[in-house]
Amino acid sequence: MAAITRSWRELADGNPLVRFVDACLRGTAQVLLQNNPLTGLLILIAIAWGAFDNGQARVVVGALIGLVVGTLTALALQVDPTSWRQGLFGFSPLLTGIAVPAFLADRPLMWLYLVLGAAATTVVTLALNAVFKRWGLTAFTFPFVLTTWALLLAAYQFDRFVVATQLPPRLPGTGTVTGGSFDWDLVPAFLRGVSQVFLTDSWISGLLIVVALMINSWRSALFAVVGSVGATLLALWFGADGTSLEKGLFGFNAVLTAIAVGAVLHRPGGLVTAYALFGIAFTLVVQMAMTTFLSPLGIPVLTGPFNVATWLLLLPDRHFAPVPNHERVKETVVSTVRRSL
Amino acid sequence: MAAITRSWRELADGNPLVRFVDACLRGTAQVLLQNNPLTGLLILIAIAWGAFDNGQARVVVGALIGLVVGTLTALALQVDPTSWRQGLFGFSPLLTGIAVPAFLADRPLMWLYLVLGAAATTVVTLALNAVFKRWGLTAFTFPFVLTTWALLLAAYQFDRFVVATQLPPRLPGTGTVTGGSFDWDLVPAFLRGVSQVFLTDSWISGLLIVVALMINSWRSALFAVVGSVGATLLALWFGADGTSLEKGLFGFNAVLTAIAVGAVLHRPGGLVTAYALFGIAFTLVVQMAMTTFLSPLGIPVLTGPFNVATWLLLLPDRHFAPVPNHERVKETVVSTVRRSL
Amino acid sequence: MAAITRSWRELADGNPLVRFVDACLRGTAQVLLQNNPLTGLLILIAIAWGAFDNGQARVVVGALIGLVVGTLTALALQVDPTSWRQGLFGFSPLLTGIAVPAFLADRPLMWLYLVLGAAATTVVTLALNAVFKRWGLTAFTFPFVLTTWALLLAAYQFDRFVVATQLPPRLPGTGTVTGGSFDWDLVPAFLRGVSQVFLTDSWISGLLIVVALMINSWRSALFAVVGSVGATLLALWFGADGTSLEKGLFGFNAVLTAIAVGAVLHRPGGLVTAYALFGIAFTLVVQMAMTTFLSPLGIPVLTGPFNVATWLLLLPDRHFAPVPNHERVKETVVSTVRRSL
Repeated sequence: MAAITRSWRELADGNPLVRFVDACLRGTAQVLLQNNPLTGLLILIAIAWGAFDNGQARVVVGALIGLVVGTLTALALQVDPTSWRQGLFGFSPLLTGIAVPAFLADRPLMWLYLVLGAAATTVVTLALNAVFKRWGLTAFTFPFVLTTWALLLAAYQFDRFVVATQLPPRLPGTGTVTGGSFDWDLVPAFLRGVSQVFLTDSWISGLLIVVALMINSWRSALFAVVGSVGATLLALWFGADGTSLEKGLFGFNAVLTAIAVGAVLHRPGGLVTAYALFGIAFTLVVQMAMTTFLSPLGIPVLTGPFNVATWLLLLPDRHFAPVPNHERVKETVVSTVRRSL
Repeated sequence: MAAITRSWRELADGNPLVRFVDACLRGTAQVLLQNNPLTGLLILIAIAWGAFDNGQARVVVGALIGLVVGTLTALALQVDPTSWRQGLFGFSPLLTGIAVPAFLADRPLMWLYLVLGAAATTVVTLALNAVFKRWGLTAFTFPFVLTTWALLLAAYQFDRFVVATQLPPRLPGTGTVTGGSFDWDLVPAFLRGVSQVFLTDSWISGLLIVVALMINSWRSALFAVVGSVGATLLALWFGADGTSLEKGLFGFNAVLTAIAVGAVLHRPGGLVTAYALFGIAFTLVVQMAMTTFLSPLGIPVLTGPFNVATWLLLLPDRHFAPVPNHERVKETVVSTVRRSL
Repeated sequence: MAAITRSWRELADGNPLVRFVDACLRGTAQVLLQNNPLTGLLILIAIAWGAFDNGQARVVVGALIGLVVGTLTALALQVDPTSWRQGLFGFSPLLTGIAVPAFLADRPLMWLYLVLGAAATTVVTLALNAVFKRWGLTAFTFPFVLTTWALLLAAYQFDRFVVATQLPPRLPGTGTVTGGSFDWDLVPAFLRGVSQVFLTDSWISGLLIVVALMINSWRSALFAVVGSVGATLLALWFGADGTSLEKGLFGFNAVLTAIAVGAVLHRPGGLVTAYALFGIAFTLVVQMAMTTFLSPLGIPVLTGPFNVATWLLLLPDRHFAPVPNHERVKETVVSTVRRSL
């Protein structure tokens, strides 16, 4: 394994095309805060499986176009090469590339809109990272969220686009929420919670993504599962909509928060685990609040709740870990931020 | 009086439990930007009076739970001890603790939600203070506002919570506003404007709060009354809803702006008083704008207008006072901000 | 021409009243990022022409009141004299002064509201410039946008104001968009796109404004026209509402972005022109997204889309131009920002 990794790295160092493919694969893995091309490859397979399984093959085409256009735009804008190679300019455009064909009807002009949107996502990534740098944070996947919200909201004003979010604009509180009930159907729902990070409704894709995480970091895989299970069970207890629950729609934001807060951006420990568990509940409440907020506009929350919740959880900058290690972790984050600008 | 204050202080220095009670009482007073345990005690009595008078005894229980949970959470997150003792981590959770039982139907799960919300308010306080520190500002009561908005908006998505804000979501402009008329019923409305800072509809509570302010700062008491009277009269002139007017709902945000801008955060003087009067009108317009903005979502503005208006009024950082004193005041604010992080 | 400019300047240096008039004229030109009193004078004539042509003479009265009140408020708040003389405190209140009589029914109290709003715009200008300074940016016309949104939203809550935006609050997606068709009527629409920067619907006013730009900077005039033509054609292609298209309503935000990104804030060049063209499409999408977002509230986007799009385009801070010149341009912007605080 280590040998393969090394030879791939050498290949990428020598060949610009392999380097580009490597940056794209790492970009795919960076959605889950991982920096590993094999993890990225497995995730792309998981996205493809889900797309064909749902009869929406165009979603995987969109994902690849978004990834390539976004990564190329970053190259054209001459971003920092190290960050670029780590895939830090691929992950948000990849998600924009999934969301546009998933939420707009399939028309030729939609593909032009997707390309424009993927390029815009890279510009917005540079812009928001410059904003968040002031607080030692990055924009995470928020450039994807902001750009996709704008593309969907704008589509309402254009005759030649059809919004197909399945969320007709309506005032909150009309219609009654029907809670789900506890049974063994929840196990696939937990895995769908992982796949929904990539807007994919498939427990097999979710399983593949957990495996993809394990390859790079067993701790990230563990917190991903804990995030999905925790948020889904809490949503069940509080009586959230049963249909969405089974699709894994209450899990995916907590998956990302749990990985970020529990496994990647803090040194592991008891207090950090407790904070991550609190963060899972916190993310669910933020997600439900954003769902209501966006209800009159008829657009989905995407990974907005993960971004907002994780910023709020990181900003207090509490010293949960012994200082030397904390500094080490912090230095990594800050240097990543610095490099990504 | 000074003797009592001194012996209480000594008691608090020596005994951790008294210290905790002291921090909670100061936290109550900090809603109105005062640092005095006796002021806090009187305000708690005013809240209790209003709660029983309105037949909502659970509101005062919520207030105490919020205050205690928020202050304990800050302790667990190892915040700066000096800020903690001044009550700077108590005031927002206290308000969250009032708002949750006031705006959600009384069910057992509501109390768990309240505890989660109060702990979240402390995390959000740390987060937002870190954000606003960049401009030499604090987050004031905005952590309460943001957390409570999230809790209420999220509650719409949960079968087991019932939103009882009395503000059904509706598009603005439907329904006609019926302005109030000038008569002597306005005098209790002015005092209710003060009590509404604590979501309390009682002129007796308002009177108690004015007395509580006087104990610590006659200038704060004066500006509180001027804020309530000024905003209520302007709302009457412009033809704002008569029923809300009599409940004091157009006064409470201006009360807070007037205290902050006119009495606490600038050195007193003619120009500052003029600026505070402008600030009262400014706050009313911001409040009405936020009321319309939140109308499709069916949630109240809370003290959001005070926060937004006061930030905008403080950011220009004009030198209204002779420099030496200005620096002194500024230093206090900045050191408070620094300490609170 | 140069002789007239010089003697006007000398006159302004010597006479406080002429200096005030000069600051007001430059303030008018600063809406389009120009610093030239003659440009400002021509624009005022264009606004007056449009106002009389549309039978809304009160709009030009409002413009003048806003300009004078905003500039005087800045004087009272003792802002930096150099920025003040460049008109940097006139342009936002001027626009507030146009918007209030354009969007609220004509009643005596409306004029008081306008004066209050113009003064508030200056306070908000100081506040937002202090916020954006952290990223080397200015608030552009956003103080006008934010203040006018607040004034219009608040007006819904007051019996004595009548909102007349012709945009009844409604959920997006109800009603079908009917796209326009390509014909020679588009030529005046392009010019109306320029006049709509000042909320004016008149191709003659648009022509006058293009001439006003030429006097100061042919490049700004060119990019203004390119912005209007580009955004209008793209809106036509995507099938945006035909009636709004002919009124020039899809052009004006792109006009401002094109001037800012293509002509004023970067050193001209091929890459900058390509970035400005991308920026025109980007601005259109942001505008349409904001239109949908504000749809339930029944208020217009104003120049909000220009501000948001241009911040996002400037934040990446790419080095499109040779460093020495880039630094020169950057220094000017930063020093303008610094001075304006």
